[in-house]
Order: sequence, then structure tokens, then C-alpha cells
Amino acid sequence: MNPLLHEIRHKPMLWLLAFVPVVLVAEHVAPERHTLLFVISVLAIVPLAGLLSHATESVAAKTGDTVGGLLNATLGNLTELVIALAALRAGEYALVKASLAGAIVTNTLFMLGASFLLGGLKYHAQEYNRVSARLQAGLLFLATVAMLIPSAVADADSVAGAAFTRSLSLGLALLLIVAYALGMLFSLKTHRELFASVESGGSAEAGEAPWPMGLALVTLAGVTVLVALVSEVFVESVQQAAVTFGMTPAFVGFIVVALVGGAAEMASAFSGARKNRLDLSVGIALGSASQIALFVAPVLVLLSYVIGPAPMDLQFWPGAVVMVLIATMTAALVTNSGRSAWFVGVLLLMVYTIFAMTLYLLPPRVA
Amino acid sequence: MNPLLHEIRHKPMLWLLAFVPVVLVAEHVAPERHTLLFVISVLAIVPLAGLLSHATESVAAKTGDTVGGLLNATLGNLTELVIALAALRAGEYALVKASLAGAIVTNTLFMLGASFLLGGLKYHAQEYNRVSARLQAGLLFLATVAMLIPSAVADADSVAGAAFTRSLSLGLALLLIVAYALGMLFSLKTHRELFASVESGGSAEAGEAPWPMGLALVTLAGVTVLVALVSEVFVESVQQAAVTFGMTPAFVGFIVVALVGGAAEMASAFSGARKNRLDLSVGIALGSASQIALFVAPVLVLLSYVIGPAPMDLQFWPGAVVMVLIATMTAALVTNSGRSAWFVGVLLLMVYTIFAMTLYLLPPRVA
Amino acid sequence: MNPLLHEIRHKPMLWLLAFVPVVLVAEHVAPERHTLLFVISVLAIVPLAGLLSHATESVAAKTGDTVGGLLNATLGNLTELVIALAALRAGEYALVKASLAGAIVTNTLFMLGASFLLGGLKYHAQEYNRVSARLQAGLLFLATVAMLIPSAVADADSVAGAAFTRSLSLGLALLLIVAYALGMLFSLKTHRELFASVESGGSAEAGEAPWPMGLALVTLAGVTVLVALVSEVFVESVQQAAVTFGMTPAFVGFIVVALVGGAAEMASAFSGARKNRLDLSVGIALGSASQIALFVAPVLVLLSYVIGPAPMDLQFWPGAVVMVLIATMTAALVTNSGRSAWFVGVLLLMVYTIFAMTLYLLPPRVA
Repeated sequence: MNPLLHEIRHKPMLWLLAFVPVVLVAEHVAPERHTLLFVISVLAIVPLAGLLSHATESVAAKTGDTVGGLLNATLGNLTELVIALAALRAGEYALVKASLAGAIVTNTLFMLGASFLLGGLKYHAQEYNRVSARLQAGLLFLATVAMLIPSAVADADSVAGAAFTRSLSLGLALLLIVAYALGMLFSLKTHRELFASVESGGSAEAGEAPWPMGLALVTLAGVTVLVALVSEVFVESVQQAAVTFGMTPAFVGFIVVALVGGAAEMASAFSGARKNRLDLSVGIALGSASQIALFVAPVLVLLSYVIGPAPMDLQFWPGAVVMVLIATMTAALVTNSGRSAWFVGVLLLMVYTIFAMTLYLLPPRVA
Repeated sequence: MNPLLHEIRHKPMLWLLAFVPVVLVAEHVAPERHTLLFVISVLAIVPLAGLLSHATESVAAKTGDTVGGLLNATLGNLTELVIALAALRAGEYALVKASLAGAIVTNTLFMLGASFLLGGLKYHAQEYNRVSARLQAGLLFLATVAMLIPSAVADADSVAGAAFTRSLSLGLALLLIVAYALGMLFSLKTHRELFASVESGGSAEAGEAPWPMGLALVTLAGVTVLVALVSEVFVESVQQAAVTFGMTPAFVGFIVVALVGGAAEMASAFSGARKNRLDLSVGIALGSASQIALFVAPVLVLLSYVIGPAPMDLQFWPGAVVMVLIATMTAALVTNSGRSAWFVGVLLLMVYTIFAMTLYLLPPRVA
Repeated sequence: MNPLLHEIRHKPMLWLLAFVPVVLVAEHVAPERHTLLFVISVLAIVPLAGLLSHATESVAAKTGDTVGGLLNATLGNLTELVIALAALRAGEYALVKASLAGAIVTNTLFMLGASFLLGGLKYHAQEYNRVSARLQAGLLFLATVAMLIPSAVADADSVAGAAFTRSLSLGLALLLIVAYALGMLFSLKTHRELFASVESGGSAEAGEAPWPMGLALVTLAGVTVLVALVSEVFVESVQQAAVTFGMTPAFVGFIVVALVGGAAEMASAFSGARKNRLDLSVGIALGSASQIALFVAPVLVLLSYVIGPAPMDLQFWPGAVVMVLIATMTAALVTNSGRSAWFVGVLLLMVYTIFAMTLYLLPPRVA
């Protein structure tokens, strides 16, 4: 039997794929029903993200460790990238930035915290490879510094204008991509023995068999196109829908978009934690956060010169910088020991709840 | 012989109890002598706090580990709570907030630092259970984030008004109390084996025998009433006295009130350090700080709806937030290794001195 | 053969000494050629700093551990001190402060990072005494708090005026010097056994034989005078030259002056790393940073009352405070494990590059 059909039949989440044609039709039939379009597009993106994730891992599993690692490292957050590209093309820079910062925060606090909690409710104490967690925390720290410095300096100095911010952002974007590439060289090549138990993971092993190469590649291409189409509906409808639901734009960008874009990875991370394979969960959560910070965000800055209405810079809303900084510090402190119990998960989730609560209550007009 | 009388006779500090009637009489006779009232009320609160602390521990020792832990965890900072309630009823919100932030800073820097220094002057190197220190540091970090986020976001956003701050503070207060309760569940119930050497402590064992239950309960009730009465004189006189002594209101709230309220716990912590029982000292210092941050402060926010002239929020003076953040980070870094020598104490005391010096020199008009 | 001549003959860097007379003559002949004077004075300071460093270590090696440690600890950054004194006398307080903050950042990020990278390119993994690294990181943290608090509080409070900043700076300067002295007492006297492998180092042992006492003392005195003379040319020409090279004053103070002043120490640190003696490199880099923060900077504040046109305070440009804070945190996190590989060096250098890039692009008018 076709493995794609087999997967769809046995995973209830994938039944949501039925919403993909619905959203594309609905957009032409009722383009003004923003709230409805928002709900359907969310329901359609979640299963597509799951397929995309599985297809990427299948290709990675077939191509050997180095190429596979490379593929996972570049395509692992394809959903987030495609959604952000749709927002970029629409000129919604505030939404792009909020969703980038939100994805970093959601991955380091919510995904990691829920993994620790779910694992800790089943096992008294769990261990994981802290070398890998430290590398990711170090990369995240670097990206946080890159986000922080332009804001801190521009704040301190009213003379620093838009030209300064723009050329600095370009330089920082290139620097982050180089750091990300060197980090891969380190973990996949020169010091791979340190990262052993994580490398043997990859969510493809979390109980799912990899697909044949052809199917994986076709799925990858086809689903990417579908995600792109649905993302456009999502981006167009999300702001209007937020008003209807009484949510602030900041909350939508930070929390809703991040949870929608990361739903598939969360499923893998949580399943790993319940199987006492915490290396997998920590790897997905922090790896995904550092990928967004050091690869997706800089690539979007570079692409904004090509496809956006104007260049995008890396200067974030100060509140977002503070949240990313706290999330990074929390992850660094928490993963320092390489051990976990349920309360560690609670602490991470509590910090996330503080952020979500603040953004939810924040009066509109801020992104 | 009555153990209460025995204790009073053998502890010179308790002879200060003679000032309790003096302050209550003096307030009626000379209500305008603020400086005198301030000095006498300080001298009266210190021994009362000592009795309160001993009574709480005696009740806790008789009621078994879990209930006892619970009692200690809720009544351990009863003096601070009663003083803050007096200030709350008087509508002195700036003083309440300064004394809360000051108590956190004083416990994590001064009490911990002086314990390390006093222990280190006697022993070359000392060890303590770092799992417990980490839990407390984690809880403190969470509370610091809760203090930081409203200020950071409100700063960044002039639209955010008083209504936002108030409803956010209410949500944060509830969240912190839940986190504190879960932390107790973790350390007293599900993972109590990790906290072994600390749990065997409790300052009742620092050389003092617990009282019989009846005496302890009567002392607890009676002394609480006395502390409440004296605190009112203290709160009324402290601001005026500060002017006389040339101290800024910020210095009074942060340093003087915190030292007065915490005198009894400091005696226990220092005595533990001199007996090479550093687990005890670290437990008292950090445990007390996290209790104030995650229990006393949120309870005051909730009570302000009932007894205060207006609801109190959790938005602190930015300088206070910075100090609490630094104190928490310092404690987290310092207790990371589970070992100590005299210079570690010096470092903590130096950071505290920097804060005290800044607040002392700060021109008035800031709380 | 005279060891001084022998050293000059065998060290190509010392051939640059020829520029010392050139710069002194050129200043009289062509005082308006700022760019030329800047280049020659840089070329002259580098070898003088090397001689000064070797002379200090030779005296230290002959005088026993404690006195030697003391000498190294006070004269180790004599070049930086003399350059800063020249700027102080010229009233260039912004340059003094920028070069102090820049030296801290350059030592903790660039010198340490390049040592890790150079060592890591030769050895798969390296270890070093993390007790020593922690002490230095703790001292640096204290100094960072002392830099941060006046700015944070003065920011938060517009009432705080110049008098407040000045008396606070004086108090902080004295406090930092006391902390530095106590840190030496701890590492050289009471707990010296913890710092063993570092103490056995000292860059004199990095392959260089110490000079006889007489020669060392004469060199120390004579070269200090020469550095003082050349520094004056350097300080006078650097701002003008910066304009010619299109560099911002912030970049010059932070990066150029720091690299010039620290060139000799860098040579020792890098050579230690290539010989797998990372204790030496970490000791030089962090020891030098904490010496500048806790000894050189406070001494300059005190000296400004004697030789400067007006008292200098410790209130730094907010951007500088943020950079020092990040550098200190990075060093604390990175040295926590006591192990290193090439990528750790890359991370440190990347953070440094972010700072350098920001300062380079920053529009003028900020120091």
C-alpha cells in the first residue's frame, strides 16, 4: 500500500488535510469571512506541517548522516519559513518579526517545558545529552545578542538612523548564517562523537518508518506549494480574526502563529519525551529554536531584498527582545545539568505563561 | 520551668521584649516623636520576630514533615507579612514594594553572603546540597521574570495603561502562588529524597528544642498580634525618621525594613554557617527569598483588593527590578557548584554593598 | 650577551622599537600630520608593551610568589594604565571610558576566543582550571554590577544629578579596589592550592627566560617613560586619524585602543593556547580583564581627582554597559565547564564581531 495513504489513514491528525481544498475554495467564495478563513487555514496548516516534517526526515534518513543532517538543518522549519515568506511578501514585517521571536520563545519554553513535564509525569527523573543542549543554547545566545545589540545601541543613541539599522542587520544576518554553518560543521563533522545520542535520533525514529526517496521528494515539493497557498490565506486573515477573537496582534504573532507553525515538531518532541528519549525532545526543541534564530530569520532578511516591498531589518520590538533573552537564559540554566524532572517542565511552562498572559492583556497597537 | 521564660532568660536578644510595652505606651504619649518611635519599634520587632520564628518551627516540628513543611512555608515570613500588611492598610504602596524587593535582595545577597563569609572564616571550604539551592534559584528566577515583564512591556509601550498593569498583576500573583505550591509538592512530596539534608534541618534544630504544642500555638497567636501593633507604629514613623537620619526612602524600604524584618532568620542562618551546617543557611536564605517573592508578595496583591485603599499591582520601580534580577542571577551563579569559601561570601556582600551605597546616596523623591 | 639585546634581535616584533624615536621626532616636525602620527605611535607602542610585560614578569619571577603575584596584578596592565593616564590628562574622558570598557570586552571575548580557536585547531579538546576562571568571572561580574547600577538608577530617576554620580563613583572605586585586593588574598594566599596550575604559569614561562633583576627594573622604568611619551602622541592623533579612516570614535576607543594596548598579552595568550597550556591563556585573558575592571578603572577615577581637569565618574555609555554585561555573561557561561573546543572560540569571536560591527557602523557623535 502507498505509505503516504497508509500514514494518512493511521494518523487522525492527517484527516485535517481535508481542510486544504476547503480553504482554497473558501478564499475565492468568501474572501471577506476572515475569521472562518483563519480557522480553516490553521486546521489545514497543521497536517501539512506534519507531512512536510516527515518528508524532510525521510529524505534525510536516506542520504546519510552529513547530507541528512544538512537537510534537516535547512528544511526542518520549512513551514515557519513558508508562512513567514507569505507575510514578507504582504509587507507584514511586524507579523514576520513577531512570529520569528514567538517561534524561538515557544520552542525553548513551551515545547521544551511540555516535553519535560510529559516525560516527568511518567518517569521520576530523566537524563539527556547536555553537550548538545549546550551547543544549541550557545547558538541561541549568539542570536539573542545579535537581536539585542541593534536595539540597545539605537536606543542609547538617537542619531543612529534607519540606514545604520539596515546595514547592521545585513551584516548580522550573514554572521548568523556563518555561525550556524560552523555549528553544523562542529556537531556533524569534527566533534560528532560528543553529540552521539542525539544524532542517532531524528524524529523519523520516534516510531515512524521513513518513506521511499521518490515519494518523500514529491511530497516535499507538493506539500511546500500547498503550505505556501494556505499560508497566504492565513496571513491575510489572521489580523482580522485576532480582532474578532479579542486577541492582540502581539499575541497572535507570538503565540498563535508559533503554535500553528510548530505543531508537527511538538508532536514528535512530546512523543519522544513519553518514550524516555529526552535527547530527541531537547534536540527538536532547542535545535528548532536555534535554526529559526540563526537560519530562518537571517534568510528572511536577505530575501526581503529580493521579494519584499522594502528591506527588512533585525531590529525587534524591545518587549520581544526581552522575552527572547529570558527564554534563552532560562534554557541555558535549565539544561545545564542534563537532568530533568516534572517540576523543571512546570518552571519553563510558567515562564511561557507569563509571556502569553502579558501579550494577551496588552492593549492593541503594538506588534 | 516554663520553656518560654527559660528561653527569654537565656537569650539576651529577647530582653528587648521590654520595648514592646514601651512602644505601645509611647505612641499614645508622644505620637509626634517619630524618630524615637522608630527606634523603639525596631528594637521591639526584632525579639518578636525571633519568638514568632521559634513558635512556627515548634508547631512545624510537632506536626510531621508535610504539614510542618507547609506551615514553615506559609508562616516562615510572618513578620514580613504583618509589617507589609500594616503598610498596605496605610496605603504606603511604595514602601510595601520597596520592602518586598529589599527582602528578596537582602536574603539572597546579605544573608547568604554573610553566612558564606562567617562559615568560611572558620572552615576552609564548605559544601551544601545544590539541588535545593537550584530549586529556590529557579523559583526566584520565575518571580523575577514576573516582576520584569510588566515593567519591560509597559516601558516599551506607552499605550499600556493602569488597567493592563492591574489585571496582569492579578494573573501573575495567582500564577506565582500556583508555582510556589507546585514547588512545595515537588520538594516535600514527589522528589523529597533530592532535598534530604536540607529537610533534616529547619532552624529549630540549630541547637534549640521545640516548645510544646500548646505554648507554641498561644505564642504564635499572641506574638502575631503584638507584631501587628508594633508594625503600625513602625510604618507610621519610618518615613519621618528616615528624613531625620538623612536616609532616602528607597534606602529605608530596601535595607532598613528588610534587615529589621529578617533579623531572626539571619541569626539562625549565621549560627548554622558557624556550625558547618551550610545546608541550613542556604535553605533559610534562599527559601525565605523565594517565599517572599512567590507567596508573600502575591498574597499582598490579593489582599490589597480586600483591605487596601486601592488594588496594588506588581509593577516595581525599574531600579528595584534591576537589583532583584542581579541578586537572582548572582545567587544562581554562586550556588551552581554547591561549594563555598570565604571569598564567595565577600563577593555576595560586595554586590549588596553596591546596592546599599547607591540607595543611600540616591537623592530623595524615589521609592 | 646583554639579554635585552638578545631578545630584541630574536623577536621580530621588537624591531618595531625603531619607531619609538621616529614618533617622538615626527611629533615635533609635523604635529599636524595626525594620521601618520597615529600609525607610527601604534607601531611604537606594540613593542614597548611587549618589553614592559616581559620586564614586569621578570621582576615578579625574582621576588617570590606573593610579591611577584602582587606585582603582576598591579603592573600587568601598565600599558593600558599609561595610555589611559595620557587621555585623562588631556581631559578625554569619553576616550578613557571607551578604552576601559573596550579592554574588558576585547580581553574576555577576543583574546579568550582566539585562544580557544587557535588551541582548538591544533588539539581536539582542551581542559583548564575552571576554579580560576570562575574567580575571575565572579570579579568581572562584580565590576559589571558596579558599572550597571549607577546607569540603571540614574536612568530610572531624572532627579539623580551629577553630585550623586560622582560620590557614588568614588565609593564604587574604593569598593572595587578592596574586592580586587581580597581576591588576590584568596587566590595567592588562603586558597592558593585551588589555583595551582594557573599559578605555575605566568607568561614568563611561556618559553621566555626571566631577565636579571637590575636589567628588569631599569627596563621597567625606562620603557614606562617611553610609553608615556608615545601615548601622548597616540591620544592626540587617534581621534583625527579615526575621521580619516572613516572609523567612529566609539570603534576607535573600544576596538583599536584595546587591541593596541593588549597586543603583548595577546601574543602570550595565543602562544600558550598553541602549546596546550590553556590555563595560561585563560589566566591572562580573564585576569587582565578583571584587573582593568577592578584595579585600572578605579585607580583612574581616584587619579582624576589629582591630575585630571575634573573628577571622572564611573557612569558609562549605556551601549558600553550592555556590551560589558554580555561579555561577562558569555565568559561565565563558556568557562563553566573547564573544557574547550574550536567552536567555543568561534562563538566568543562571533559575539565580539557583533560588537565591532555595530560600533563600526554606528554614526559618529557617540563615544
